[in-house]
Amino acid sequence: MGMRAVEIPQFGIEHLRVAELPAPALPAGYVRIGVRAVSLNYRDYLVVTGSYNPKLPLPFVPCSDMAGEVLEVASGVTRWKPGDAVMGCFMPAWQTGPYEEPYAKSALGGAWPGVLAEQVSLPADGLVPMPPHLSFEEAATLPCAAVTAWNALVAQGPIKAGDTILLQGTGGVSLFALQIARLHGARVIITSSSDEKLERARALGAEGLINYKSTVDWDKRAKELNGGRGVDHVVEVGGVGTFEKSLNAVRGGGRISYIGVLTGIQGPINTAWILHKHLTIQGIYVGSRAMFEDLARAFALHRVKPVVDRVHRLGEIADALHYMSSGAHFGKLVIRAGS
Amino acid sequence: MGMRAVEIPQFGIEHLRVAELPAPALPAGYVRIGVRAVSLNYRDYLVVTGSYNPKLPLPFVPCSDMAGEVLEVASGVTRWKPGDAVMGCFMPAWQTGPYEEPYAKSALGGAWPGVLAEQVSLPADGLVPMPPHLSFEEAATLPCAAVTAWNALVAQGPIKAGDTILLQGTGGVSLFALQIARLHGARVIITSSSDEKLERARALGAEGLINYKSTVDWDKRAKELNGGRGVDHVVEVGGVGTFEKSLNAVRGGGRISYIGVLTGIQGPINTAWILHKHLTIQGIYVGSRAMFEDLARAFALHRVKPVVDRVHRLGEIADALHYMSSGAHFGKLVIRAGS
Amino acid sequence: MGMRAVEIPQFGIEHLRVAELPAPALPAGYVRIGVRAVSLNYRDYLVVTGSYNPKLPLPFVPCSDMAGEVLEVASGVTRWKPGDAVMGCFMPAWQTGPYEEPYAKSALGGAWPGVLAEQVSLPADGLVPMPPHLSFEEAATLPCAAVTAWNALVAQGPIKAGDTILLQGTGGVSLFALQIARLHGARVIITSSSDEKLERARALGAEGLINYKSTVDWDKRAKELNGGRGVDHVVEVGGVGTFEKSLNAVRGGGRISYIGVLTGIQGPINTAWILHKHLTIQGIYVGSRAMFEDLARAFALHRVKPVVDRVHRLGEIADALHYMSSGAHFGKLVIRAGS
Amino acid sequence: MGMRAVEIPQFGIEHLRVAELPAPALPAGYVRIGVRAVSLNYRDYLVVTGSYNPKLPLPFVPCSDMAGEVLEVASGVTRWKPGDAVMGCFMPAWQTGPYEEPYAKSALGGAWPGVLAEQVSLPADGLVPMPPHLSFEEAATLPCAAVTAWNALVAQGPIKAGDTILLQGTGGVSLFALQIARLHGARVIITSSSDEKLERARALGAEGLINYKSTVDWDKRAKELNGGRGVDHVVEVGGVGTFEKSLNAVRGGGRISYIGVLTGIQGPINTAWILHKHLTIQGIYVGSRAMFEDLARAFALHRVKPVVDRVHRLGEIADALHYMSSGAHFGKLVIRAGS
Repeated sequence: MGMRAVEIPQFGIEHLRVAELPAPALPAGYVRIGVRAVSLNYRDYLVVTGSYNPKLPLPFVPCSDMAGEVLEVASGVTRWKPGDAVMGCFMPAWQTGPYEEPYAKSALGGAWPGVLAEQVSLPADGLVPMPPHLSFEEAATLPCAAVTAWNALVAQGPIKAGDTILLQGTGGVSLFALQIARLHGARVIITSSSDEKLERARALGAEGLINYKSTVDWDKRAKELNGGRGVDHVVEVGGVGTFEKSLNAVRGGGRISYIGVLTGIQGPINTAWILHKHLTIQGIYVGSRAMFEDLARAFALHRVKPVVDRVHRLGEIADALHYMSSGAHFGKLVIRAGS
Repeated sequence: MGMRAVEIPQFGIEHLRVAELPAPALPAGYVRIGVRAVSLNYRDYLVVTGSYNPKLPLPFVPCSDMAGEVLEVASGVTRWKPGDAVMGCFMPAWQTGPYEEPYAKSALGGAWPGVLAEQVSLPADGLVPMPPHLSFEEAATLPCAAVTAWNALVAQGPIKAGDTILLQGTGGVSLFALQIARLHGARVIITSSSDEKLERARALGAEGLINYKSTVDWDKRAKELNGGRGVDHVVEVGGVGTFEKSLNAVRGGGRISYIGVLTGIQGPINTAWILHKHLTIQGIYVGSRAMFEDLARAFALHRVKPVVDRVHRLGEIADALHYMSSGAHFGKLVIRAGS
Repeated sequence: MGMRAVEIPQFGIEHLRVAELPAPALPAGYVRIGVRAVSLNYRDYLVVTGSYNPKLPLPFVPCSDMAGEVLEVASGVTRWKPGDAVMGCFMPAWQTGPYEEPYAKSALGGAWPGVLAEQVSLPADGLVPMPPHLSFEEAATLPCAAVTAWNALVAQGPIKAGDTILLQGTGGVSLFALQIARLHGARVIITSSSDEKLERARALGAEGLINYKSTVDWDKRAKELNGGRGVDHVVEVGGVGTFEKSLNAVRGGGRISYIGVLTGIQGPINTAWILHKHLTIQGIYVGSRAMFEDLARAFALHRVKPVVDRVHRLGEIADALHYMSSGAHFGKLVIRAGS
Repeated sequence: MGMRAVEIPQFGIEHLRVAELPAPALPAGYVRIGVRAVSLNYRDYLVVTGSYNPKLPLPFVPCSDMAGEVLEVASGVTRWKPGDAVMGCFMPAWQTGPYEEPYAKSALGGAWPGVLAEQVSLPADGLVPMPPHLSFEEAATLPCAAVTAWNALVAQGPIKAGDTILLQGTGGVSLFALQIARLHGARVIITSSSDEKLERARALGAEGLINYKSTVDWDKRAKELNGGRGVDHVVEVGGVGTFEKSLNAVRGGGRISYIGVLTGIQGPINTAWILHKHLTIQGIYVGSRAMFEDLARAFALHRVKPVVDRVHRLGEIADALHYMSSGAHFGKLVIRAGS
C-alpha cells in the first residue's frame, strides 16, 4: 500500500515533487504514524537547496517536525496504541541527559529521512504525547523550534523570574523563547525589522521592542531598555552577522545561546568580550525527549498556543519555503500532510 | 540621643518590654537606618522563649527582618544616601555564592542583636533597595521568609514551568513559595488545617488544596492530585513530624527543601526513601544578598505583594507572638516600628 | 541446554541451593553472556534473608553484579560480538541523565531476576566493556559499589583536589570511594573498628585514620584531623545509626551522600543541622550506564585495581554471605560463576 | 618613607623605569605588604605597550601578581598580622560566587594600579595565605595564571578523572592547567612548537605531545591521540587564530575555555560547530578569592610547585618582558621585588 510524500530529486526548491512511495517498514520497537501536520524550519530550506549537506543521497524526503496519529505498533511496543496523538522527536536517539555525538545521526530530515509524508515509522521512544489543547497543526511546530528554545532557556538556562532575555526577530525559535520566558516570569526585549511584528510580539508579552532597521545599534538600545545594564541572556539566532552586537548587549557573567545561522556561519568576530565579560556561550542543537516532555507539560498546564503563521497543503511546499525564505512570516509555517 | 527598642530581659513572652536605649553607633562602612517596620518569624518566637539559644546574652533585642529609611551613612559609604528606602539582609555577611559557616555569625536577632528598634546600624553591603511598589510594612516581610523560599525554589532549585511544588501550611515561607512558584509557571499543591485558608491560597494561585485534618494521608492525596505521580519538590517547613510524608509524596529523583522546625527537630525518620528514590534533601538557611536582590527584582517586575496578616505597634509585640504561635495567621505579621 | 544457577527457594541463607535451570531466552536487542564472576553486596544479604522484599516471587536468582563473556547476540544487536568481555549495569534501564522512577524496575537481583548463574541474558545497552587491565573477578565488583561511589563523589559531587572526604568503614562502597577520591586529588579520612584495616586503608591512600571503637566521637576526631573544620563530604553508608555524627562532622554548606542502611533505616535523627548548616543530603541509588562508562575509563587510565577480599565458588554462596554479614571482610567478595 | 616601583611613563617597554614613589596609603580595612616577588603575564606586556588600554592614565605601575609579607594592618583588620606571608588576588573585589561586572574595576595592574613595587596596600579580604611549601617567587606566579586555569577546569569545569584535556603551548596558564588536570586524574594532550618543551611537559605528566610546527593539523592529531574521539575540554589560550582548530578537536557536548588573545581577538571563525556539537564556550577572566583559596589548598596538599622559568630583578623588567614576548619561556617569569 503506498502513500504520498514530498521528495527532493535534485537540489532546488523548484525540483520538489509529490511522489507516490511505498509505506514505510515497521521494524521491532517502531510505531507507524499517520502524519497529520509537518512544520518547516530554516534548516529545511538549507536541506532542499543543498546548502545543508551537498552530499545528501537523493531522492530525499525533507523535514523533521511532525504530529500525527498512531496507526500501528510493532511487536514489543507497549507505550502506544493506535489512535494515540503523538509528536516526533527531532533526534529520536537523544532520550535524556547531556548531548552526545551519536545522537546527531538520528536527526530526522537531515542525517535520516524526513517526515514530509503521509506516513512515517519512528522508534517508540522517539515520540511524545500531544498536549490535549493543541491541534495537529499547532503540535507539529514544537519538535525543533520550541524544544530548542526550551533547551536554551530552561534546560541549559536556567532562567528565573526577573531575568531579561534578548530575542532576535520573530521566527519560530524567538517566538517560542518569548512564550517560554514569559512562563518563567522573565522580561523580554525583542528585535524586528517590522513595527507591525513588534506590536504582535508585544501582544505575546514582549516588553522591550526594537526595530533594528531604524535602530541599527540595537545592542545599545537593549541595554538602555534594561536600565543601562546588559541583558542576562541573548538567544542568538542570527549567527555571525549579529554575534558581536550580542556580545555587547549581554551583561558580564551572562549567557548567549548560540543557535542560528541566518546570517551565515563564517565571519570576523571580536572575541575579547567572551573572556573579559566571563561569558558562557552555549551551542544549542534542539534537545532531548526529556526536554520535549517537560516543554509539553508546561505548555499543557498553561495552555500555551504556538504561533502558526500559515497552513499549506502538501503540494504547496515550494510556496511555503519561498515564503519562509522571504522572512515575511511571524511564527511557524505548517504543511497539512494528511488527506 | 536615645531610641525605643523591644528587649528580652529574661526569656518568656511575658517579660518583653519596650526600653529606651542609646542610638546605635555608626562604624566605618555602616549605615544608620530609621526602622519603619519589622516582620516576625517563628524563629523570633523561639528566641524570645529561650528555645533557640538558652545562652543568649540578655537583655537582647530580637527580630531579623526590617525595612526602613537611611538616616546617615558613615564615611566611605557610597552606595546609600539619607532618604533611601532599604531592607536589611538576614545575614549581612552572606553576600553571594554558596553558604559558608562564618556567615551565620552575622545573623540578625540571633547571633547578632536584632532590629526591633527605632534605629539600627548595619553594614552598607547588608542592605537591599526596597522595591518601589511596596510599603515599609510589606517590604519588612521579605528578608527571612521570602529569601528562604527563593533560595529553596530558585537558587538551589531550579524550578521550571510545569513543575509541581508541594507546600505545607500557610505561614510566611509557604505563601512566598506559592507566589514564587507561580511566577515561574509551576503548579502548587498546598496543605492547611483550614478550608478557609485553603480558599485564600487558591486565590493566590494554588491549584491543589488539601485539608490535612480531614485528609490525614495528605502525601497520598498530593500524588493523586498530581496524576498519580510524586511531586517534583516539597518545601518542608514542618520538620520531623511531617518529613516521612514528604519523603513519600516526592517523586523519584525529586527534591525536598528542609527548612522548618515547627513540629520539632528530633524524631524517628524512615530514611530508606532518601536513597531508593535518589532524592536531594537541601537544607535552606535563608540566603545571600544576591538572592535577595534577585527576588526583589522579580517581585518589582511583577508587582508581587506579600501577604500581611496583621500590623501591630511596637508595644504589642507580645500579642503578635502569641497570635503567631497560635497558628491562626495567614501570611506575615508585622510590627510598625517607627513613631 | 541447561545451566547452573543459585536460587532462593525460601528466604534464609540456609535454603540457598545450586539448581539446574534452562538457559535464559534471548529476545530481540538482548545479549547472552557467559557469567564468569559475580560480586556480592549487602543488598544481596537482605534479599536472601527476606528483609529486602518479603514479597519477592520465589524461587529467585539473587545478585546484581556480573562480569562475563558475550556468547551470542540477538538480531539487531551491533554493539557486541561473541567473545567481548563485559560488565552488567545494575539498572540496565538507566542509561544517562538524572534518575527517574521507572529505572528501578530494571534493577537486577531485586526488581528483576539476578545474575548468580552460569548464563544471563541482558539488554545490549545495559552492558559496559570491561577495562582491559582487570580480571573477571575484579571487574565483577564494579557495577553496584563502584558506580555508587562514583555517582556520590563525581557525578553528583563534584569532588575536587584538596577536598576532604570522610568515609565509614572498609566495605565495598567506602574503599571504592577512597580510590576515586584519591584519583581526584582529595584527602580521605576513614573509620574502622580495626586498626589493621585502617593500616590497609592507609596503604590505599587514606590520610586520616579513626578507630571508631577506641574513638567513639569519630565525628569530632574527623574535624580535628581536618584542622578543626568540618569535612567537605561524608559518604554515609551506616544509615540512621551514624547519620547524626555525619551531620556533625560535615562543614557548613557541605554534602552528605546517603547510601547505606547497615545500621537500619529508622531511628531518631536530630535534623536541625540540615538547615542550619545549609547541607545537601543526596540519596544515591547506584548510577547510570554513562556513569559506569566514565568510571571504567578512569579506572582503565590509572589502572586502578578493586580490592577483592576473597573469591568463592558458586556452591559456597552461603559461606560468602555469612562472611559478609560478619563484617570481617575488607573490600569485595566475589563468586566465580563459570566452570 | 619612600619605596621603589616600576613605572610606565609612556607606552613602550623601552620607557619603563624604576622610580622612587611615596609608600602607599593605608585606608581602613587595608593591609600594607612588603612585596617580595611579582610574576609577569602576557597582559602586562599588552599594558606596557599600550595595546591593553591606550587611555591608561600615565605614569602607571604595572603587574597584577604578587607575593609578600604583611608589614602593617589598618584598624579593624583582624585576618592578618605583620609577618604573614600572603598572595594578592587579581580582582580583590571578586570574593566568591559567579562573576559580576563591577569586580573588573578592581583588577590590579589594569583598572587599578599594579604591584611592581616594593610595597603595596590591598584590601584585607583581597589576600590569600601563602601555601607553606612555596617560596615567594613561586607563590607570586599563582594569582592570575593558576587561578585562571583552576577556574576553567575546576570551578567552571567540572573536570573528572579520565577526562582528556587539550592544552596549547607551554605558557603559564597551560602549565598550571596541566598540573591541575593531573591532580584530578585527567589525561593531558599538549601542543608546542618545540620538541624540547614537549619533553618537559611530559615530565610534568602530559601524555599526548604534539609539535604544531611539524604537525600543522594538531586538531586531527589530538583526536587520534584520544582514540579517534574529540577531547572533553580545550583550554583555548591562542585566541582567534587557534579557535577553529579547537572547535574541531573537541567532542560533541564538550567544553572550550576561552582565555587567550595571543593570536589576536578578531578574525574569521566558522561557528557552525558551536551549535552542531552542542558546545559550551566559557570565557574565563581569572577567578574569585574562593577559587584561589581552593587552589592554594590543593597545591599545598600535593606540594605542587609552579614552573618558574627565570627570576629577574626589579631593574630587569624590560628584559623579562622582551623574553616573554619572544615565546621562548617555559612557565612563569618572576621579578624579585624586594631588596
